[in-house]
Amino acid sequence: MPDAIDLIRAKRDGGRLSAADIRWLIAAYTAGTVADEQMAALLMAIYFRGLTADELMAWTDAMISSGERLELHGLTAPTVDKHSTGGVGDKVSLILAPLVASCGAAVPQLSGRGLGHTGGTLDKLESIPGWRASLSNADIVTVLAATGCVICAAGEGLAPADRRLYALRDVTGTVESIPLIASSIMSKKIAEGTGSLVLDVKVGRGAFMPDLASARQLAQTMVELGNAHGVRTSALLTRMDTPLGRAVGNAVEVEESVATLRGHGPDDLVDVTLALATEMLRLAGLSADPAAALADGRALERYRAMIAAQGGDPDAPLPSAKHAEMVTAQSSGRLQGLDARAVGVAAWRLGAGRARKEDPVSASAGVICLAKPGDAVEAGQPVLELRTDDPGKLDHAREALAGAIEIGADAPEPTGLVLDRIS
Amino acid sequence: MPDAIDLIRAKRDGGRLSAADIRWLIAAYTAGTVADEQMAALLMAIYFRGLTADELMAWTDAMISSGERLELHGLTAPTVDKHSTGGVGDKVSLILAPLVASCGAAVPQLSGRGLGHTGGTLDKLESIPGWRASLSNADIVTVLAATGCVICAAGEGLAPADRRLYALRDVTGTVESIPLIASSIMSKKIAEGTGSLVLDVKVGRGAFMPDLASARQLAQTMVELGNAHGVRTSALLTRMDTPLGRAVGNAVEVEESVATLRGHGPDDLVDVTLALATEMLRLAGLSADPAAALADGRALERYRAMIAAQGGDPDAPLPSAKHAEMVTAQSSGRLQGLDARAVGVAAWRLGAGRARKEDPVSASAGVICLAKPGDAVEAGQPVLELRTDDPGKLDHAREALAGAIEIGADAPEPTGLVLDRIS
Repeated sequence: MPDAIDLIRAKRDGGRLSAADIRWLIAAYTAGTVADEQMAALLMAIYFRGLTADELMAWTDAMISSGERLELHGLTAPTVDKHSTGGVGDKVSLILAPLVASCGAAVPQLSGRGLGHTGGTLDKLESIPGWRASLSNADIVTVLAATGCVICAAGEGLAPADRRLYALRDVTGTVESIPLIASSIMSKKIAEGTGSLVLDVKVGRGAFMPDLASARQLAQTMVELGNAHGVRTSALLTRMDTPLGRAVGNAVEVEESVATLRGHGPDDLVDVTLALATEMLRLAGLSADPAAALADGRALERYRAMIAAQGGDPDAPLPSAKHAEMVTAQSSGRLQGLDARAVGVAAWRLGAGRARKEDPVSASAGVICLAKPGDAVEAGQPVLELRTDDPGKLDHAREALAGAIEIGADAPEPTGLVLDRIS
Repeated sequence: MPDAIDLIRAKRDGGRLSAADIRWLIAAYTAGTVADEQMAALLMAIYFRGLTADELMAWTDAMISSGERLELHGLTAPTVDKHSTGGVGDKVSLILAPLVASCGAAVPQLSGRGLGHTGGTLDKLESIPGWRASLSNADIVTVLAATGCVICAAGEGLAPADRRLYALRDVTGTVESIPLIASSIMSKKIAEGTGSLVLDVKVGRGAFMPDLASARQLAQTMVELGNAHGVRTSALLTRMDTPLGRAVGNAVEVEESVATLRGHGPDDLVDVTLALATEMLRLAGLSADPAAALADGRALERYRAMIAAQGGDPDAPLPSAKHAEMVTAQSSGRLQGLDARAVGVAAWRLGAGRARKEDPVSASAGVICLAKPGDAVEAGQPVLELRTDDPGKLDHAREALAGAIEIGADAPEPTGLVLDRIS
C-alpha cells in the first residue's frame, strides 16, 4: 500500500505519481485515511510541480470515479454543453442554452453558484419567482427531452471527491493551479455525460486567468482531457477586461438576457454568444444558423419553456432594488476602460455575490454600466448605476471602483472579444 | 487582522511575510483559528520559497514566545551546549557534556528521543537502571550547579508551537526545509537559555543533510539565528558516512561512551568529541585542555556524578541482548566503506529505534562494527554483529545491510572527520 508521506515527498521532489498511487490517494482521502493536512501539502506541491499528462488523466479519472455519471444516451438530439471560467456580467449561458437548443442540440448545462467577484448562473436564475435550481437526474433528462435545454445545479453525486478537494483548495491557497483547475472542471463535465463541450476561457483583468499564455495553457489542458475522455471538446479564449453587456448582478442580468433573446442585446454579448453557439453547433454536427434563431424568436421560446419547466414564471416581474446611486465621469472625453474586476467587486459588495459558500445573495443588487469603452462621456455624466436594497453598502462598493473608470482623449482601438480558438 | 489564505498565497507567490503576520500566524495556529491544512499548505510553500532572514528571525521568535525560557543566569560557570543534527553511533553528548563540565563550563544538554535510523541520547541513557530523563526546571538548575552538566528531556514548556509544527511537518512531507529545520532547532536551544552553542552538523550518507552545500547552508542559517539572539554560536561540519565509533544502539553506546571516558575510545569518536569540546570551551572563554581532562579521569568522574544525580547507577550492569548473529565479509581485501544509514536502519529494525513517537525501544538491541573502513578483512570474517532480544527481527535487519559493506583492494584515503567550521 502506498504511503501518503512518501507520495507527498515524491511530488515535492519533482517525481511522478503512478495511476495506482493517484487512485489510492483520492480513495484514501475520501475515506479519511489521508488527512486534510496531507492533501493540502500535496496540493501545494502540485501547485509548484504541476502534473504530467498521465498524472492529470489519472487524477481526473479518480474524481469521476468517486461518483455517478449522468446517462444522456437516451436523447435523440446530440448533447453539447458550454463551460465558462467566469467573468463579470457573463450571462451568456442564459441565452446560449436555449439558442443552441433551438438549433437542434440538447444542452445539459449543469452549473454552479458564484463565489467572489464573478456571479453564478444559478444565482441569476434564482431571481425568477418559482424557479428551482435542484433537479433529480430523472428530471434533468425529462426537461432536456422536452425543451432541449436545462440549466440546473450539478448534483452532489457528480465527482464528490472534487467537491471536497475544491473546498480544501479554497482555504489553503491552492486554487490557482492549472492541472487542478482543469481536472476540477473537466471531471464534472465528463461525469455530466455531454457528448461535446465548448470551453469559454476568459482572459484579462476581470478573469481568473489574467494573461493569454496561462489562459491558453488551461484551455489546451482541458481540451486534451475532454477529447481523451471521448468528449469532443474545444475552447474559445475571450477577452474579459470590461463587463460583458451592461448589467452586472442577478435579476439585472436575467433582464438583459431576455432583452438579448428579444433581439435587443448589446453587441459584445451578442457577439460572444453567437461565437460560442457556432462552435457548439459545429462540434454537435448541426448546421443551423444561430443568428437566425436568435432573430426570429425561436431561442426566446425555448428559454420560456425551460424556465417554466423548472417552476419559474417567465412573465413574473423580477425584484428591483430599493436604492440606486450614480457614479459619474470625472472628466470629459472617451471612455478608455471600465475595469471588469472593480465592477464585479462593487456588485459583490452591493449584495449580488457571496464571500462564503453559505452566504445568501441579493436578487436585486448590482451595477448597470451606462457607458462602455469607446463611448463619449461628459464630466458629471453618470457612467455606473449602483443598485442595492441596503444603502449602507454603497460606500463600500464605491471604494472598489476607485480608478475603474478610465477617460482619455482618443477613442480606444476597437478589439474583437474572441482572441483564439483551441481544438 | 491578517487572513490565513492571503498569507499562504503571498508566500506561495514569492512575497514576504511581515513580522506581525508571522506572529499572528503562529498564535492563530496555536489557538486553532488557522487550521492544520492551512499551516500544511504554508509549510509546503515555505519548502519551495524559503524564508528571508527577517522572516526566519520572526518565525523563530514566535516559536520561542509560544513558551517559557529556562533561567540559567544564576550559575557561576559559563553555559555552553552542543546540538547534533543526528548521526549513526553518535554518542558524543554522553562523553562531551561531562568532559566540558570538567573543564569549567556548565553544560545544559536538553535532548530529544530518536526517530528513524538515528538514535536519541535519552534513549541511550535510559538503558542505565534508575536513570530519569524528565527533570523539573528547578532540578535542571540544581543538577547543573552540582555537577556542571545535565542531559535531560526538553520540557513541554519550551517552544510548544514548534512541537506542534514539527508533528505536522512529520506527516506532511515538509521536514526537509532548511529554514524550518533551523528555526525548530534554534528556538528550543535559545529558549533553553544557554550562553553559547556549538552545532555539529552531520554531512553524508548517514546524515539528514546528504551534501556539503546544504549542510553548510543549514549551519550558517543556525549560526546567524543564534548570534542574532545573543547566543554565541558556531558550527562544525562533520562527516557521517560510516558509524561513529563501533557501537550503534542504546546500552552498547553507553558502554562505548564509558570506555571512551576511561581512555579506551575509538579514534574517530575521540577526535570528534575533542574537536567539539575545544570549540565549546573557546566560545565559553575557557582555556582548559579537554584532552588532558579526558585522559586523567576528570571527565569520567563528572559523568558518574551526573548519572547519579539523575537517579542512575553508573556501576549497574547494562541490559545485554539474548541473541547475536554475525554478518561476514564476502571477499578479502580492505574495508572501503561501511554505510552509516544501512547500519542505522539495521539497528533500528533490531529494536534500537522507533518508527513512531509512541513506540518503545529496546535497550539491548544494536549493531557492533567489528571492522571499520581501512581495516583489512578476510572473506568469511565477521564485520558486523547484530544484537537483539527478538530473533525474528534478524532477517529484516540483515536486508537493510545489502551492499552496506564495501570491500576493495586498496586502503581508502584516510579522511578527517571535521570538514569545516562556521562561526
